[in-house]
Amino acid sequence: GGVAEAKTLEDVLKEKGVITEADYKEVTKSKPIYYKPGKGFTFTAPDEKFQLSLGGRLQVRYTFTDLDNNGTTGDSSKWEVRRMKMWLNGYAYSKDLTYLLQVDFVNGSSSKLLEHAYLNYRLLDEVQLLAGQTKIPFGRQWLNSSGAQQFVDRSTASDAFRPGYDAGVKLHGDIARGFATYEFGLYGGAGQSVVRTSNDNAIAARVTVNPFGKMAYSEGDLDRSAKPKLSVGANYFRDTLKATYTPATSSTALETNNLTFAGSSGWLGKGLSTFTASEKIDVNTFGLDAAIKWLGASAQAEYLVGQADGQDSNATLRAHGFYAQAGYCLIPGTVEVALRYSYVDPNRDKSNDLQSDTQGALSWYINKHNLKLQGDVTNSHKQNGTKTSTDDMIYRLQAQVTF
Amino acid sequence: GGVAEAKTLEDVLKEKGVITEADYKEVTKSKPIYYKPGKGFTFTAPDEKFQLSLGGRLQVRYTFTDLDNNGTTGDSSKWEVRRMKMWLNGYAYSKDLTYLLQVDFVNGSSSKLLEHAYLNYRLLDEVQLLAGQTKIPFGRQWLNSSGAQQFVDRSTASDAFRPGYDAGVKLHGDIARGFATYEFGLYGGAGQSVVRTSNDNAIAARVTVNPFGKMAYSEGDLDRSAKPKLSVGANYFRDTLKATYTPATSSTALETNNLTFAGSSGWLGKGLSTFTASEKIDVNTFGLDAAIKWLGASAQAEYLVGQADGQDSNATLRAHGFYAQAGYCLIPGTVEVALRYSYVDPNRDKSNDLQSDTQGALSWYINKHNLKLQGDVTNSHKQNGTKTSTDDMIYRLQAQVTF
Amino acid sequence: GGVAEAKTLEDVLKEKGVITEADYKEVTKSKPIYYKPGKGFTFTAPDEKFQLSLGGRLQVRYTFTDLDNNGTTGDSSKWEVRRMKMWLNGYAYSKDLTYLLQVDFVNGSSSKLLEHAYLNYRLLDEVQLLAGQTKIPFGRQWLNSSGAQQFVDRSTASDAFRPGYDAGVKLHGDIARGFATYEFGLYGGAGQSVVRTSNDNAIAARVTVNPFGKMAYSEGDLDRSAKPKLSVGANYFRDTLKATYTPATSSTALETNNLTFAGSSGWLGKGLSTFTASEKIDVNTFGLDAAIKWLGASAQAEYLVGQADGQDSNATLRAHGFYAQAGYCLIPGTVEVALRYSYVDPNRDKSNDLQSDTQGALSWYINKHNLKLQGDVTNSHKQNGTKTSTDDMIYRLQAQVTF
Repeated sequence: GGVAEAKTLEDVLKEKGVITEADYKEVTKSKPIYYKPGKGFTFTAPDEKFQLSLGGRLQVRYTFTDLDNNGTTGDSSKWEVRRMKMWLNGYAYSKDLTYLLQVDFVNGSSSKLLEHAYLNYRLLDEVQLLAGQTKIPFGRQWLNSSGAQQFVDRSTASDAFRPGYDAGVKLHGDIARGFATYEFGLYGGAGQSVVRTSNDNAIAARVTVNPFGKMAYSEGDLDRSAKPKLSVGANYFRDTLKATYTPATSSTALETNNLTFAGSSGWLGKGLSTFTASEKIDVNTFGLDAAIKWLGASAQAEYLVGQADGQDSNATLRAHGFYAQAGYCLIPGTVEVALRYSYVDPNRDKSNDLQSDTQGALSWYINKHNLKLQGDVTNSHKQNGTKTSTDDMIYRLQAQVTF
Repeated sequence: GGVAEAKTLEDVLKEKGVITEADYKEVTKSKPIYYKPGKGFTFTAPDEKFQLSLGGRLQVRYTFTDLDNNGTTGDSSKWEVRRMKMWLNGYAYSKDLTYLLQVDFVNGSSSKLLEHAYLNYRLLDEVQLLAGQTKIPFGRQWLNSSGAQQFVDRSTASDAFRPGYDAGVKLHGDIARGFATYEFGLYGGAGQSVVRTSNDNAIAARVTVNPFGKMAYSEGDLDRSAKPKLSVGANYFRDTLKATYTPATSSTALETNNLTFAGSSGWLGKGLSTFTASEKIDVNTFGLDAAIKWLGASAQAEYLVGQADGQDSNATLRAHGFYAQAGYCLIPGTVEVALRYSYVDPNRDKSNDLQSDTQGALSWYINKHNLKLQGDVTNSHKQNGTKTSTDDMIYRLQAQVTF
Repeated sequence: GGVAEAKTLEDVLKEKGVITEADYKEVTKSKPIYYKPGKGFTFTAPDEKFQLSLGGRLQVRYTFTDLDNNGTTGDSSKWEVRRMKMWLNGYAYSKDLTYLLQVDFVNGSSSKLLEHAYLNYRLLDEVQLLAGQTKIPFGRQWLNSSGAQQFVDRSTASDAFRPGYDAGVKLHGDIARGFATYEFGLYGGAGQSVVRTSNDNAIAARVTVNPFGKMAYSEGDLDRSAKPKLSVGANYFRDTLKATYTPATSSTALETNNLTFAGSSGWLGKGLSTFTASEKIDVNTFGLDAAIKWLGASAQAEYLVGQADGQDSNATLRAHGFYAQAGYCLIPGTVEVALRYSYVDPNRDKSNDLQSDTQGALSWYINKHNLKLQGDVTNSHKQNGTKTSTDDMIYRLQAQVTF
C-alpha cells in the first residue's frame, strides 16, 4: 500500500493554466533531488553537468555453524554486520565523466575500508576508460554485487579464485548495445589498497556475449523475463607475486595477501607450502561462465582454473573449482528458492584436499535486492588429508537494506 | 539575533491568490530538504517513502592532568578531537523501516570506526525489532549520547560497567506512550565490530518506568520542565567469555577487549588476574538507575554490579560501582552547574583498589546540546594497594558542535 | 560546449508577470541546493543559518621508478589511488561558525584517516579562533592543498620539513583585507590523531604579507592575473618529543612518527641516530617562503631549517632544505609547464647525505585544479655516504577529479 504522491507546485500551476504544458516540461526537466531504490538520494545541479548520489547498503547476518568434528574450535553462533557500505557516485563536468567512491565501514581497521575509487570516461559506449581502484574483471559472481546474490553470499569457488579489488586502468565497452562486452585492464597487482613495490604488474581481460541483449549480473529472474536472457563469459588474470620462504619454520609468505585468491581462503594462499624457495611466482587464472534467466527461473555456472609457477624452484601449484546454481521464483519477483553446488580443489596434485558445498536458499525479496531477507543451509564437505572427511552444516539468515 | 527567513515562491503565490490556501498546504506538505539542529540536513523523496539525514558531531577537548604522585608518567596536557561522528539515518520503503549508519572517524585505525549499523522495523510502537549493531541496552548514562551529557564525558562508573556496542537483534517498544519501555536483545557477545568464534552469545534486557510520561535520556533540564519528569530503570547483561592464562608471564587475556567492561578501564579488564586458568568466564551484570528533571534542576544516579565466574577455576570476581549527579540551570536552558560523585570498586574481595571521582561542571549551552562549551574539574581519588592513595586533579574544557 | 541551463519555475513566472522582479529576487535568494566545482554539492537551510557542502577528491597515479643502482629493491611500477578525500563542511547556527570534516579513505588502516575536524569562529575577519584538528600552519606548499599543486605532488623539501596535522587551537585572521595574514596556534604536538601523554605541547606561528592583495595558496597562474600577485611568508614551529634509545640495537625511536618531519622521510626521522640517549628532544623549525603570479607565469620558493637538541645528551641535529619552482601557462588556464629544484640536507654535520630533485611537469587543466591530468619527470640525486651517489629517474602520471 503506497502513499499517494502529493501534488507539486508545478502540477498545481499547470492545472490552473498559470504555466503551459511546455513550461511544465521545461521547469521539471531537471530534478534537483530524487530517490531511486538501490541508488540512494540523487542530487543534480541546475546545469545538469554534475550529479551526486549518496546511499548505503547494510547486511545483518546470523550464522550458526554445526561442526561435524568438534575439535579445538567447536560450533559457532555469530551475529555480525557483514557489510555496511556507503557510496558517493555520479558524474562531474560532463555526463560522460562518472565517478564512484565506495567504502565498507565494516573494514574499519584494515586496508579494505576503501573499495571503489575511480573515474570513468566514456568516449563511446564501445570505448570507455576507467582509472582508479575497482573490482578486477575476473569472475561473473565476483563482479555481481554482494548485494544482488541469490544466496546469502557468494560461492566458495568464487571466493577461492577471485582476485578482488585493485588499482589500475581499464579499457572497456559495450559492443552492439550489449550484445558483447569487453574489459581489458592493467593493475598494480598487489590487491586492494596495497601499492606495489616491484615492477611486476597484473593484467586482466574479460569478454561476455549476450545473444539476447545486455544482461545485468544481478542474480535471480526477479523481473520474470518474458523472453530468455543468456550471457556467456570468459576471463583471464595474470600476475607475478614475490614469495619469501623461511627455512626455520618451513613457511612461505607472499608479499601481499590482499588479492583474495592469495589470502587464507584462496587457492594460492592455501597451497603456498608448494613453494620452498624465496622466489617470484607467476600466477595465471582462467575462467568460463554462463547465466540464463527466463520466466522466473535462473541458472548460473562458472569454471575456474589457477596455476602458479615458481620462477626459481620450478614448483607448480594447480587448482580448479566450479559452482553451478539455479533458482526459481515461487511468487514472481518476491519468493525464490535456489540450489547450489560448489567445488574447490586447491591443489590438484595433492589428494584428499577437496571442499564441496551443497546449498539451498530461500529468499524473500520485499523490494527486489534492495530490501530482502535470505536464509540458506550449507552442507560443507571437507576432505582432511589422512583424517576422516567432515560434513559441517552452516545455517545463515540475513537481512539486507539499501538506503 | 536570527536572520529573517526569506519568503518562498509558495508564500508569494499564495499571497497573490495564484494558489489557494489548500493548494499551499498540498504543495508544501513534503519538504525535499530541511534542517533541524542536532539532526543534520534531511532529504525526503517526493513520495515520502524515503528519507535520509546527513550530519556530524565534533568534540574538541583539552585536558590537563595534574598527578598527585609524578612517577614515571608525569602530568599531561592533551589536545584532542575526542569524537568526530558522521551519520546517515532515516527511513526507507516505509516510515516504519528506519536505519542508522554512524561512524566515529577518530577511531580510524581500529575496529571501533563503525558504531551503529542497523535497521529497525516498527510493527507497533509497542513492538519493534532492531537488527544490526548498536548500543547494548545496559546503563542509563551509556545509552544517553556522548553528545547529551551534563559533564564533559560520562562517569567512570558508567565507563567501567558498560558493555558497549555489539551486533545482534533486539525486541523493544514503548508501552502506553512511553509510560514504560522495554528492550530485550540477543548479541554476538564479543563487542563492537568483533565476530564471535564460539557458540556463546550474550543477552541484555532493560526496562524503564516513566510515571509522568516519556523522558529522553538527554541530561540537564534544558527545557525547564514545568511539570516534574521521572524515569526509573533496571537492566541486566549476561555473557560468556573465553580467557587464556599464560603461566610463564602469569597473565590472563580475554578473547576480546571490545566490550568496554572487559577493556583496560573496565572492571573485568582490571580484575583479570583473578583467573589463573584458561577457561570460560560467565559474566553477569546488573544495574538500577533513576533520573528526575524539574524547573531547570536535574538529578540522576545509577548503581551497577558485575560478577565473573570461572567455569573451571571456580574463581569469582565481584565488582560494583555507582554515580550520582545533579545539575541546575542558572540561566534557563543556557548556563548550568553540575556536581557528580562516581565510585568504582573493581574487585570487592581486594582491599585498597577503589577509585572515586568528585566532579564539578559548568556548561554553556549556546544551542542546547547541539552547540555548547563545557568545562569540568575532577578530583580523582585512587587507592593504590599498599602504596599511599593519590588524588589527581583533572581539568577539562570541551567545545561541541552538531552540524 | 556547455548544456544550456533549463529555465526554472521562478524564471517562467517572472516572464509571465505572475511574480514581480522583487518577488523573484526574494524567492531565489536562498538556493536550497547548488553545485560549485571544487566544493561539491551545497545544501542551505531556508533560514540560511545552516549550510553543508559534501564533496570528494580523487587522485589516481601511476609511478615508474627507474633506479640508478638496482640493489635489493629494483625498479617499481606502481598504480595507486593516491588520495580519496571526502569532506563535509559549511556553517552552523551562524555564518560565522564554520566547520570542516575531511577524511582520506586511502588511509583506512591507520590513524591518518581523519585529517580535518574543526570548528572556526569568526569574530572579525581579523580575529578568528579555530579549535580541532587541521594543518599546522608551517610551510607554504604544505598549506596549499595536495589538490592545487603545479606538480604531481609536493616537493621533497616540503615533505621533509612539514609537521603535518595536529589537534589544538589557533588564533588567526586577515589584516586589511588580506594585505597580511597571521596564524598562531597551540597544538598537542604528537601529530595527526595522536594524543599527547606528556605535558609537552607545540606552538606554531605564521605570517604572510601580500602587498597586492590576498593571494590564494593554489599554485599556477590559471586565472592569468592581469596585475601581479605576490605573497611572502615566514613561519616557526616548536615542539618537544620524547626519544627512547635502545642500546642493544643502537636504535632510537620517537614517541610519535605522525609528525611528518619525524617520520621516515622527514629530517628528524632520518637523523634520529644522532640521539644515543633516552631523552626529550627540543625541536625548532623555521621557514621563509614567497610566491608570485603574473600573466600566466608563477614562481614559488621556500627555505626551511630544522634543529633538534637532546636535553640530556646535548646532541644536536641540524637540517635545512629548500625548493624553487616556476611555471608558465602555454595555453592560458589550460596547459602549463613547470620546473622545480628541491634540496634537502637532513644532517648538516654529516657529509654525503644530500638529496636533490630536479623536476619538470606538464599539466592539462581541464577545469583548473578540479579536473586535471598531470605528468612529471624527476631526476632524484642522492648521496649515499661512502658509496657512489645515484641518480634515480621517477616518471609520474596523475588524474585528479574533484566532485
